[in-house]
Amino acid sequence: MKSDSTVLPDVFRICFEHYNKAKNLPTGKIKNPNEILREFDFEIKKNPADAAELFKDMQLYLKLTPNTLTPNFQNQLFSGLNQYALAGDWLTSVTNTTMATFEVSPMGTLVEKKLIEHMNRLVGWENGDGTMATGGSNANMISLLVARNKMFPEIKKEGQLNKRLIIFVSEDAHYSFEKAANILGIGLDQVKKIKTNPNGEMEPSHLEEMARVSLSVGECPFFVAATAGTTVLGSFDPIDRIHEISKKFNLWLHVDGAWGGSVLLSSRHRHHLKGIENVDSMTWDTHKMIGTGLMSSFFLTKHNGILRSSHNHGGEDYIFHESEIAEWDSGPSSLQCGRRSDALKVWLTWRSLGDIGIEIQIDNLFAMAIKAKEMILEYKELELMYEPSSLNICFRYRSVSDVNTLNKKIRHRLLEEGIFFINIATRKKETFFRLIIVHPDLNETHLYKLFSDIIRLGNKIKEETEFCMLKT
Amino acid sequence: MKSDSTVLPDVFRICFEHYNKAKNLPTGKIKNPNEILREFDFEIKKNPADAAELFKDMQLYLKLTPNTLTPNFQNQLFSGLNQYALAGDWLTSVTNTTMATFEVSPMGTLVEKKLIEHMNRLVGWENGDGTMATGGSNANMISLLVARNKMFPEIKKEGQLNKRLIIFVSEDAHYSFEKAANILGIGLDQVKKIKTNPNGEMEPSHLEEMARVSLSVGECPFFVAATAGTTVLGSFDPIDRIHEISKKFNLWLHVDGAWGGSVLLSSRHRHHLKGIENVDSMTWDTHKMIGTGLMSSFFLTKHNGILRSSHNHGGEDYIFHESEIAEWDSGPSSLQCGRRSDALKVWLTWRSLGDIGIEIQIDNLFAMAIKAKEMILEYKELELMYEPSSLNICFRYRSVSDVNTLNKKIRHRLLEEGIFFINIATRKKETFFRLIIVHPDLNETHLYKLFSDIIRLGNKIKEETEFCMLKT
Repeated sequence: MKSDSTVLPDVFRICFEHYNKAKNLPTGKIKNPNEILREFDFEIKKNPADAAELFKDMQLYLKLTPNTLTPNFQNQLFSGLNQYALAGDWLTSVTNTTMATFEVSPMGTLVEKKLIEHMNRLVGWENGDGTMATGGSNANMISLLVARNKMFPEIKKEGQLNKRLIIFVSEDAHYSFEKAANILGIGLDQVKKIKTNPNGEMEPSHLEEMARVSLSVGECPFFVAATAGTTVLGSFDPIDRIHEISKKFNLWLHVDGAWGGSVLLSSRHRHHLKGIENVDSMTWDTHKMIGTGLMSSFFLTKHNGILRSSHNHGGEDYIFHESEIAEWDSGPSSLQCGRRSDALKVWLTWRSLGDIGIEIQIDNLFAMAIKAKEMILEYKELELMYEPSSLNICFRYRSVSDVNTLNKKIRHRLLEEGIFFINIATRKKETFFRLIIVHPDLNETHLYKLFSDIIRLGNKIKEETEFCMLKT
Repeated sequence: MKSDSTVLPDVFRICFEHYNKAKNLPTGKIKNPNEILREFDFEIKKNPADAAELFKDMQLYLKLTPNTLTPNFQNQLFSGLNQYALAGDWLTSVTNTTMATFEVSPMGTLVEKKLIEHMNRLVGWENGDGTMATGGSNANMISLLVARNKMFPEIKKEGQLNKRLIIFVSEDAHYSFEKAANILGIGLDQVKKIKTNPNGEMEPSHLEEMARVSLSVGECPFFVAATAGTTVLGSFDPIDRIHEISKKFNLWLHVDGAWGGSVLLSSRHRHHLKGIENVDSMTWDTHKMIGTGLMSSFFLTKHNGILRSSHNHGGEDYIFHESEIAEWDSGPSSLQCGRRSDALKVWLTWRSLGDIGIEIQIDNLFAMAIKAKEMILEYKELELMYEPSSLNICFRYRSVSDVNTLNKKIRHRLLEEGIFFINIATRKKETFFRLIIVHPDLNETHLYKLFSDIIRLGNKIKEETEFCMLKT
């Protein structure tokens, strides 16, 4: 380790240029692994590389990584990055501290605690609990773990034996609940899928029926997750009605608001989460709709102290010392021992926007989503697949034959051209584009260009196919 | 979101100054939560804060966070931060991409894969598998999960029923195995503690006995973890002998090398891990001994493809599309869906040092640890608790009465003075300082000052106590 840094000014320069330019640049052409392996030397050598060489590597890394900062990146449930989020993440890196104990990470601990208090108040919980997680999937897993340890406290000590634990999620829920059921030893088969209506919202009557059947065959149903913003359609499950059923059958009610949780800040749109104050816990990723940078995932719960009683075990011999500040240590309520401090970037972003700034940002996104829908309806070549519930706009290029394949091909060409990055999804055997309206700077010009390009490529592929058919 | 960043140059300036100065600064005085809550305004407001205000917050955040970059930070198993690690983390933040699919994170994916290949080769595995984890505890949990799903494949689907799964770790092992047993539904009681010898190394004969007893009472023992570098003493369990027993009883053999894994790079010290090529899996944190920044945790295994078969489930409808590059997606072999790309900082650090540079760094740390031990032996006021196995130097200030309390008090005063940050540990009812030799720039001057300060404070507290006793 050199005693002074010589490379950081150069690194800052390329990061800063990238940040300021990327918004107006395309997403970048995709390349396959073998192309990249030829273009970039990944090998770790016996001998040191010099600074100039490493600086070139960094530049090439930036060049070969898709640009997620542009409004043309519409592939994921996040796009863009608030400048304060980046600032906060840089500060987190340079302080390089770990979240296990208060004494080593006093600021990281308090910033996280205060953020969680603020978010809990927005949910409607005055005295809740929470922790940051390493992603929405991880936060969903924590909900299952906490619920299991609350409702079957003997499992923590004795393990899961002789009990078939059952969890309910809708057929449009995120797959992370199944991943969690695998991890927790509950088993994939014990994740029961509740039907959704044509808009992708959970059917409470089916939940009630499934819970009754499960009990009647001697299983232990204990958990239901409603989704606030489904991954593909952006639908919101009816929390109020699911809550009635969860009470009746004594189920822990979790809301997966990884995607849609942020609408709590909008007085115009928070009705999507009506009844949220009655649920037991919630997942909320602020890196999605608020642009706070990866990862900014939160697990929140109205049950104070439940994380520590669920997770705490060990470490007293060397790290969690008895003291008057021991209750402030976040390690005992975490799944980890050391963990990266992730709160600062969220906190700075939130302070910079204020609740009002986030509300405006979200309201603008919803307005732009309506605009996108209207534009699609005007193009005869395009077909709207679902009436949008929120910011997911599902549409496809029309075709009477091979419509799924054709749309997959259009997407592939789009990625090869490198202007837009947009995902496709398949639901009930139909494949379509899933356009995510989430970048705060996304405007009608971006949308116009995207739709034109999809139509251009669709027409072109159709022509090529017809030409091939003529030849044979 | 502003269209251009206006704050990043100022953020860089304070980060850069902090990085270059911190090495020569003290660790900082500790404050209790209430003091900090008075000094810093954590509240999130309705209205935006302006740039000047936020910049002050950032400066205060740096000031109130303990300095982990100085060689005087000896509290954790990491200290200091390579400049390329910081550079890599900054680039990761500005690219803000997620590791689920190859197409969105081609460079992140390949850098991680190539690093894991390199590390596996150092272990002795030509065709292994691996993933980055969110900490050493998480990597240890992955080992348990993968082993369970390999040895009891029905659990993934059906859940854990009617089987008492048993895991073995030494009584000096890290508490993360118990945390993992809680998460996985195996249960804390099923973590059986194997005795250690006076140096803190696992007694293989006791493991053999425990495995036999467990089988004889109808349990399902399936896993043993050896530790390469225990948390308190830095001891290495005898892998070769544990391997013989694991073969005999068909146990998955994992090595928790979170702390000590890096000695594989030193031809002088890698004998501590003799036999590592025979084990099934390994945890290795490069942020500890190599200084690559939090978090740089790896789970490695010799079993190719096992992560995907253990973890994979779902997501095909919207993210993991069938394609010729689908095998490159890292999501299906991860516990998460989206996750932060953590590999670049490790890769840049490793390239900058080369294997040789890391070897030199580690050999120097071992030499400095011997120096520390010799210095302690020379002070009549100090007592060496254990013959050091590696880089953990356990010692205390001597006292005929109340020695545990006295050493705790010394530590507390040390933290209040804010020059050194060093931890205490308690083992077999004895409390002592656990000095971690891990900062590459740590030298005899730092050690001399630390020991003098401990002796000064010890003498002072003794005097005060005697004075109090005289008075009563």
